[in-house]
Amino acid sequence: MLIIAERINATRKPIARALADRDAAFLQDVAKKQADAGAHVLDVNTALAPDTEKGLMVWAVEAIREAVDTPLAIDSASPDVARAGLERLPKGSAILNSISAETGRLDAMLPLVEEFETRVVALAMDDRGMPASCDDRWRALETIFARTDAAGIARDRILVDPLVRPVATNPEQAPQCLQMIREIAEKGQGAGTTMGLSNISFGLPERRHLNRTFLAMAAGAGLASAILDPLEPGLMATALAAACLTGRDDYCMAYITAQRAGRL
Amino acid sequence: MLIIAERINATRKPIARALADRDAAFLQDVAKKQADAGAHVLDVNTALAPDTEKGLMVWAVEAIREAVDTPLAIDSASPDVARAGLERLPKGSAILNSISAETGRLDAMLPLVEEFETRVVALAMDDRGMPASCDDRWRALETIFARTDAAGIARDRILVDPLVRPVATNPEQAPQCLQMIREIAEKGQGAGTTMGLSNISFGLPERRHLNRTFLAMAAGAGLASAILDPLEPGLMATALAAACLTGRDDYCMAYITAQRAGRL
Repeated sequence: MLIIAERINATRKPIARALADRDAAFLQDVAKKQADAGAHVLDVNTALAPDTEKGLMVWAVEAIREAVDTPLAIDSASPDVARAGLERLPKGSAILNSISAETGRLDAMLPLVEEFETRVVALAMDDRGMPASCDDRWRALETIFARTDAAGIARDRILVDPLVRPVATNPEQAPQCLQMIREIAEKGQGAGTTMGLSNISFGLPERRHLNRTFLAMAAGAGLASAILDPLEPGLMATALAAACLTGRDDYCMAYITAQRAGRL
Repeated sequence: MLIIAERINATRKPIARALADRDAAFLQDVAKKQADAGAHVLDVNTALAPDTEKGLMVWAVEAIREAVDTPLAIDSASPDVARAGLERLPKGSAILNSISAETGRLDAMLPLVEEFETRVVALAMDDRGMPASCDDRWRALETIFARTDAAGIARDRILVDPLVRPVATNPEQAPQCLQMIREIAEKGQGAGTTMGLSNISFGLPERRHLNRTFLAMAAGAGLASAILDPLEPGLMATALAAACLTGRDDYCMAYITAQRAGRL
């Protein structure tokens, strides 16, 4: 499973502070810790405020690249900010987070996917807002796939995010998400899936158990990637165990290696 | 999910010792701890040796019943031993563990299911031995269902065990088991599913991560019950989280209650 590490995000207070203070050492430490924990890609979101987001993206990308070689996911709703981040990365290495079927977003973002040869997170939503059913999600996806297909963007460069909602308030949403993951694995013609995992446990105590359990369920349903905090206790152990149990870790060698290295 | 606690089993050394010594207090303590951890049913296996199994089953059932009211699963390959245990339990309260499609086993065991109005664990295997494919499992199940249907045993009294094999040696077996759980949920006409969870992690280090992860995957695939050690750290938390995530715990109240009680 492709692990996209979520910690470098301006909505997190310590990151907001580091961005505001231009504290490169702090950001680099978070980047290293996430990479050491087994993250394959580091998400970078600098949306503190509209007028500083672009400058901070450039600064953050450069700071992180000094510290680690791990590929980055450029996380912004602004095409201008996204371009500024992507311009500082090797072509073909990054993930653009994200596109959706909302009006204007494909027009603005798809040229970046093409120009910088990125993979891309596709939120399964359109102008009607957060999806409630698989039908809602497919309606948005059909729009996205029509445009990505036309642009010659291969399905395997797309990671569909079915948009996880908190189980505390939407009890039917977890099964719907799992169903959607299965359907994309079956009918997405090579498209992968990802999700912002911790949304599932919002508002509940001891969130780590819900996060681990939902990650495992989703992996069993065919999830290809997850956006999560690799430093959350047990979460990477779950991802490693899931690889064994879905036949993606031959002879459980990665699992055994992680155990020997004290990472379980 | 119906949790069948597995600790009281003669293959475990401390239990073998307690059985040999007729140490009722030890057995009662294990029974209480498993019930307190949230087990719904306690499995009882006294197969130390053929000549003592029946006497020990009677003794163990009576000792455990003095300590807890939790329903029991009578776990024996011997119809004579199973009868001796079931005779000491309220009619309609027990689970018989287990029947299979092996020659002679249905003839010997089905009358007990009828007479004592038990639920029953049905191993998806026949004389060809451990199943490798879903087809193997269905072949055994068709034999079992034909006989249970003819005997008027409702499908919802049957818990099919797809027979989990260690992922370390059979990497393709975990996905096969999940597939079988899905198929029984779809086509079993009300039959439930269960599994001896810890078999999955046999031979690997840090087994708890694999056990938790596979329990969550199986719950996501529709698993109705599991045979597990409720005292293994994190396993009951996974079961409680899985109930939230499969829509079986309204407003996550059981999860929140467990957290408040310090059980997560």
